[in-house]
Amino acid sequence: MKRVGVVDTTFARVDMGSIAVRALETTTPHLKIVRRTVPGIKDLPVGARRLFGEGMDLVMALGMPGRAEYDRVCAHEASQGLMTVGILETRPVIEVFVFEGEANTPQELAYLARRRTEEHAENAYLMLFHPERLIGRAGLGLRQGFPDAGPVR
Amino acid sequence: MKRVGVVDTTFARVDMGSIAVRALETTTPHLKIVRRTVPGIKDLPVGARRLFGEGMDLVMALGMPGRAEYDRVCAHEASQGLMTVGILETRPVIEVFVFEGEANTPQELAYLARRRTEEHAENAYLMLFHPERLIGRAGLGLRQGFPDAGPVR
Amino acid sequence: MKRVGVVDTTFARVDMGSIAVRALETTTPHLKIVRRTVPGIKDLPVGARRLFGEGMDLVMALGMPGRAEYDRVCAHEASQGLMTVGILETRPVIEVFVFEGEANTPQELAYLARRRTEEHAENAYLMLFHPERLIGRAGLGLRQGFPDAGPVR
Amino acid sequence: MKRVGVVDTTFARVDMGSIAVRALETTTPHLKIVRRTVPGIKDLPVGARRLFGEGMDLVMALGMPGRAEYDRVCAHEASQGLMTVGILETRPVIEVFVFEGEANTPQELAYLARRRTEEHAENAYLMLFHPERLIGRAGLGLRQGFPDAGPVR
Amino acid sequence: MKRVGVVDTTFARVDMGSIAVRALETTTPHLKIVRRTVPGIKDLPVGARRLFGEGMDLVMALGMPGRAEYDRVCAHEASQGLMTVGILETRPVIEVFVFEGEANTPQELAYLARRRTEEHAENAYLMLFHPERLIGRAGLGLRQGFPDAGPVR
Repeated sequence: MKRVGVVDTTFARVDMGSIAVRALETTTPHLKIVRRTVPGIKDLPVGARRLFGEGMDLVMALGMPGRAEYDRVCAHEASQGLMTVGILETRPVIEVFVFEGEANTPQELAYLARRRTEEHAENAYLMLFHPERLIGRAGLGLRQGFPDAGPVR
Repeated sequence: MKRVGVVDTTFARVDMGSIAVRALETTTPHLKIVRRTVPGIKDLPVGARRLFGEGMDLVMALGMPGRAEYDRVCAHEASQGLMTVGILETRPVIEVFVFEGEANTPQELAYLARRRTEEHAENAYLMLFHPERLIGRAGLGLRQGFPDAGPVR
Repeated sequence: MKRVGVVDTTFARVDMGSIAVRALETTTPHLKIVRRTVPGIKDLPVGARRLFGEGMDLVMALGMPGRAEYDRVCAHEASQGLMTVGILETRPVIEVFVFEGEANTPQELAYLARRRTEEHAENAYLMLFHPERLIGRAGLGLRQGFPDAGPVR
Repeated sequence: MKRVGVVDTTFARVDMGSIAVRALETTTPHLKIVRRTVPGIKDLPVGARRLFGEGMDLVMALGMPGRAEYDRVCAHEASQGLMTVGILETRPVIEVFVFEGEANTPQELAYLARRRTEEHAENAYLMLFHPERLIGRAGLGLRQGFPDAGPVR
Repeated sequence: MKRVGVVDTTFARVDMGSIAVRALETTTPHLKIVRRTVPGIKDLPVGARRLFGEGMDLVMALGMPGRAEYDRVCAHEASQGLMTVGILETRPVIEVFVFEGEANTPQELAYLARRRTEEHAENAYLMLFHPERLIGRAGLGLRQGFPDAGPVR
C-alpha cells in the first residue's frame, strides 16, 4: 500500500483534485489517497509539505494560473516552492499546472485540465509501483495533455 | 482555540492589518490574534517567522507594492521569502498583496485592499476550522477582491 | 541593551555605514553597535550572518547598486540572500539599498543615501524598542529617503 | 569503486540516460552506475537527491527543455533545484540540458544530445578519479557538445 | 595561518585559478591555498562547499560566463548557489565573474580577468587579515577590474 496526497486550489476553474483522485483510483487498489484544497497555487507548497507530514509517499499538486503576467510570476514562485518541498522531503511532488492561456475556449481548458491531470496520475502510479517502466519510456518525448512530441533519431 | 498572526507594513497606504484583525474577529470567537507591523514587504518573512515562533497556527502577511518595476521585484522577493517561511514551519502563510497598479483611483485601492483582506481572512478561518469546506470549493475559480472567475465545464 | 550590526560596502559611493552608525547612536544610549565593511552587495548576506553569530538582535545591510542592468540582477541576488539570512536567524535584516539610477546628480545621490539610511535607522530603533509604535504607523504609506506617499481613504 | 547516478526524463526526445550509461561505462570499470527516469526536468532534483540517498558519489541529471518561453522558465527552476541538491549533499550534480532550440534539425538535436552527454560523462569521470587533470584544463574554454571556444591570451 | 580555497572552471577562457593562486601568494606567507577546477560555473557552488568542508576560511569562486542570454541565466543561478553556500557555511565566498561581453577584444578579456581576479585576491586578504581596513575603504566606490567610480559628496 502506497499513499498519495492530492492538493488543489479554489482558484482553479476546474475541480482538478477530483479528477486526480478518480484517475489515481483507477490505477490500482493498492493506493491510499488523501485530498486537500487550498486557496491558490502559492499555498500548494505548504499544503504539499503538510501531506508529507501525514506520511504520503508522493504528492500531486494541481493548479491553474491565470492569463496575466503576474500569474506567471506566481506560478514560478509556486513551482520553486514545490521543488523545495520535494527536495527537503526527498519524495516526489508532481506539479500539474494548466495555464488558462494554453487553451482558447472553456471547453479546451476543461479538456486540457482533465487530460493533463490523468496522464500525470499515470506518472504518479508508475513512479511508485513501476519505476522501471519509466526507464523504458525515457527519451520518447512524452507530453501530458497534448500529443506526444515523440523521439528524434 | 487557534492562533493567527497578522503582520502588515508602514509602507502600505491602507491599514490592512486592522482590516485583517477585524475580519478575523468576525469569523469565530475561538481565535487568538496577534498583530505586528514592519516597515516594508521584504520585512514580512522575518515578521511572519517570529510570529510562528510565538505559536501561531497561521500567519496573514499583508502588503501593498507600489507601481514601479522595482516594486514588482521586491514583491517577488517577499513572496519567495514568505513561501520559504511557510515551508520551513509547515504552517500556512496567507499572502495578501495589493498592487497599487491594480486600482485606478485611491477609492478603488482602498476598496480592493479591504475586500481582498476580508476574503483572505475568510480563507484563513476555513483553513483552520473547516478545511473540508475548501474541498467543496475546489475549482470554482474563486478570486479575492475581484469578482470570481467561476468554473468552466 | 540591544545589539545592532551594521554592514556596508567599499563598492558604494557613499560611506553609508558611518551614516548608519551615527544615526543609530542618536536614537538611544541603550544600543551596542558593531560595524563591518565588505567589498560588494553580494557579500552582505554572509557579513550579516556573521554579525548575527556575534549576537546581534538586528542587522542593517547597506549597499549602492550601480546603473547597469547587471547591477539590478546583483541587487536581486543580494536581497534574496539577506532575506534568507533573516529567515534562518529569525531576526530582522533591514536592507538599505540606494540605486545610483534613483538620483540625477551626485548631490542627490549623497542626500538620498543619507536620508534613507537615517530613516531606516529610525525603523531599526522602533523594531527593537517600540514595535507597538510601528503598528500605529501601519498603512501610512511611509517611504524612506523620499516624501511619504501617505494613506488613502 | 565509485558510484554514479544517472537520471533522465520521458519528456526528452532522445534517450539521454542510455547514452550517459554507455559513455560512463567506457571510462573505467571502477564505476557502479544506477539509472532512473522521471517524467520531466522539474522532477530531476528529487530524483537526484534520492540517488544520493542510495550512496551515489555524483549524479548526472539529463533533460531536454522545449522551445517555448515557458520551457526556459522550467529549465531555470530545475537548474536551481539541482544546484540546491548538490549544495545540500555537498556532492556534484552534473546538469546536462539540451534545449530543442539549440538545434535546427532532428539530426542535429540527436547529435548534440549525444555529444554533450558523452563529454559530460567524461567530466564526471575526471571529477571522481582525476580531479587534478581538470586543473590542467582550467581556462581552456572547453564546451560540451559544441566546438571548444579555446583560451585567450 | 588562514586557509583559502580557489575554484575555477574549464569553461573559462583564461586560467583564472592560477592567477588567483599567484595573487594570493603575494599578499602574505600566512596563507594556505587549496585549488580545484570544475567544468562550469554551475559546478562552482558544490566545489566551494567541498572546499569549506576541508577547512577553508574563505573561498574564491572564479568563472567566465559567455555572451548569450542563456549564459546570463546560468551566471545568475551560479551566483545564487554561491551565496547559499556562503550563508550555510557563514564564511565568505568571493565571486569573481568576468562576462565575455564586458570586453571587446581577447586582449581586453584577458586583461580584465587578470585585474579583477587580482583585486579580489586583495579583498580576500583584507577580509581575513585586516577587516578594519575595509571599513576605512567604505563608500569609496571601489571597482574590481575597472577604474574605481570614486566617492560622491
